[in-house]
Amino acid sequence: MIVVVTPNPAVDVTYRVAEQRIGETQRVLDVARRPGGKGLNVGRVLDATGTATHAVLPLGGTGGRWIAEALDALGLAHTDVGIGGETRTTVTVVDDLAHPTMLGEPGPELGADEWDAVTAAVTALLPGADALVVSGSLPRATDPGVVARWVAAARHHGVPSVVDCSGDALLAAASAGATVCKPNREELLDATGADDERSGARLLLERGATVVVVSRGSDGIAAHTADRVLDVPAVPGVSGNPTGAGDAATAGLVGALVGALDGAPDRAADGGPGSTAVLDDAVLLHALRSAAAHGAAAVLRPVAGEVDPADVARFLHPDHDHADPDRTRTPA
Amino acid sequence: MIVVVTPNPAVDVTYRVAEQRIGETQRVLDVARRPGGKGLNVGRVLDATGTATHAVLPLGGTGGRWIAEALDALGLAHTDVGIGGETRTTVTVVDDLAHPTMLGEPGPELGADEWDAVTAAVTALLPGADALVVSGSLPRATDPGVVARWVAAARHHGVPSVVDCSGDALLAAASAGATVCKPNREELLDATGADDERSGARLLLERGATVVVVSRGSDGIAAHTADRVLDVPAVPGVSGNPTGAGDAATAGLVGALVGALDGAPDRAADGGPGSTAVLDDAVLLHALRSAAAHGAAAVLRPVAGEVDPADVARFLHPDHDHADPDRTRTPA
Repeated sequence: MIVVVTPNPAVDVTYRVAEQRIGETQRVLDVARRPGGKGLNVGRVLDATGTATHAVLPLGGTGGRWIAEALDALGLAHTDVGIGGETRTTVTVVDDLAHPTMLGEPGPELGADEWDAVTAAVTALLPGADALVVSGSLPRATDPGVVARWVAAARHHGVPSVVDCSGDALLAAASAGATVCKPNREELLDATGADDERSGARLLLERGATVVVVSRGSDGIAAHTADRVLDVPAVPGVSGNPTGAGDAATAGLVGALVGALDGAPDRAADGGPGSTAVLDDAVLLHALRSAAAHGAAAVLRPVAGEVDPADVARFLHPDHDHADPDRTRTPA
Repeated sequence: MIVVVTPNPAVDVTYRVAEQRIGETQRVLDVARRPGGKGLNVGRVLDATGTATHAVLPLGGTGGRWIAEALDALGLAHTDVGIGGETRTTVTVVDDLAHPTMLGEPGPELGADEWDAVTAAVTALLPGADALVVSGSLPRATDPGVVARWVAAARHHGVPSVVDCSGDALLAAASAGATVCKPNREELLDATGADDERSGARLLLERGATVVVVSRGSDGIAAHTADRVLDVPAVPGVSGNPTGAGDAATAGLVGALVGALDGAPDRAADGGPGSTAVLDDAVLLHALRSAAAHGAAAVLRPVAGEVDPADVARFLHPDHDHADPDRTRTPA
């Protein structure tokens, strides 16, 4: 079971209109509501591909209640931490003519006691967990140290952690010794202030991350360790809806890592290096390919947080997506 | 107590953004949520000016639950009829640069049994009611005959009815003998197919309405009976937010009518003509002035469904708003 924390979940609403226009009254032709936030996308993709997950998320108000009910309807296990604020809503307006318009509510601020309750919920689940995933933005005014606490708790229980956050939360996760930091390239450069991907990855590795995986959309995905970079190209010829493709890639990555670590004899229970010693090139390449295949499968789906497992299997097939071992290189 | 039916309530959400743009991700700077739908606006204005109301509304899903809780928080009495569908949400996006953009969800469809339950709720409240108000659009695919049933029930209990609906629902209300049909001019012409206001009003009067009150925004408000038209100008020099001004005018109209009918000695309990015989010119002019004052007060408020009673009182003051008796005229 993979524990997935979504620090700032949202009710994702999509409105289809005939033509987006400013300053007019527009009839919404079609409404879709789904539980959103990057962690929930990761969890739904893992669930769709047969990996059990348990979501942990702060929820408040009507939106929070709606998300809890929607997760029940989807059959996803979740631990809700009740908060005083109102869980946010995001509204995306789409037509067939222009790019989507996204309206994002600021979301609630959580008190220290509410974050303590989230940490307690995470910690209670870790003894039975195969991995911890933390994915998505933090609510306004959140101390990024909360992410460090979750990562440290995972280390304490010998559970590998994968963190897809941005800014100071990404730095805090690295400093706390996250197994994998998984920003996209823009987030990496933004958080570290580095001028190039390798320099940014090194900064996170020096802070304490074991591996830094950088997703680059159509430019593929890479795993950085202290002494090497493993590269896997994106699945070619796939076009569609890129929203949530990065989350599907995270799901593919963590699912593959858990599968590899599960079979490893030297997994340590004390949080020592043993738990990550098996992250050798073969395991990482397999995980990157899985991430690329999941990301491509997500692009084919109209909404975020979904993949067709048949698409994932097709993209993982050797005829489609080979990471050439020659592309494993030792950086300058 | 005034029974106010809102056939198609909505969660009205207003998003303030820095600048409306299509095809971009926009941070919402400020979120306002309020229970919406024209009937709820009427009820809130009546409540703010000291007239007790009881809302009847079909509610379903998360949005419906939110509205019920919001009405509780506002201290407004309401009877909720549970429905299987999801109460709609409307999102209005505003900035300081362009006109607001309004995104309206289609809303639920109600089954015949659900409409029966609404009718039962209305009928149960009528014995203690001073008036019935039906205001706002009908949900998709609704038989306009439901409005006729409510009007007929009011007549049966000797309770005057005021109907602010459009299209076939307006025609059905007139045919059922509504005391007052109160469309705006555009709705009147649209529903009746008439070329001018007087012709349209006559069509509703011939169907069975006792009075037709037509609101015209800055062009004032008029009451049509079979043989005369009473005119009251809009309060001059008022500018602001016209959204909901028509609903405030309805509240002002019905509040004044109820006050006048309350003191009348000949109110009939059998639904006969006695209950409306007191709608003489003096009563109607007073009601029109009250409507104009409430409408102007609503324009000064940033959101629909609100008036400052002090503004209403100020606009009702003789120095501000006199309907010249000479403007009462016998139409050709």
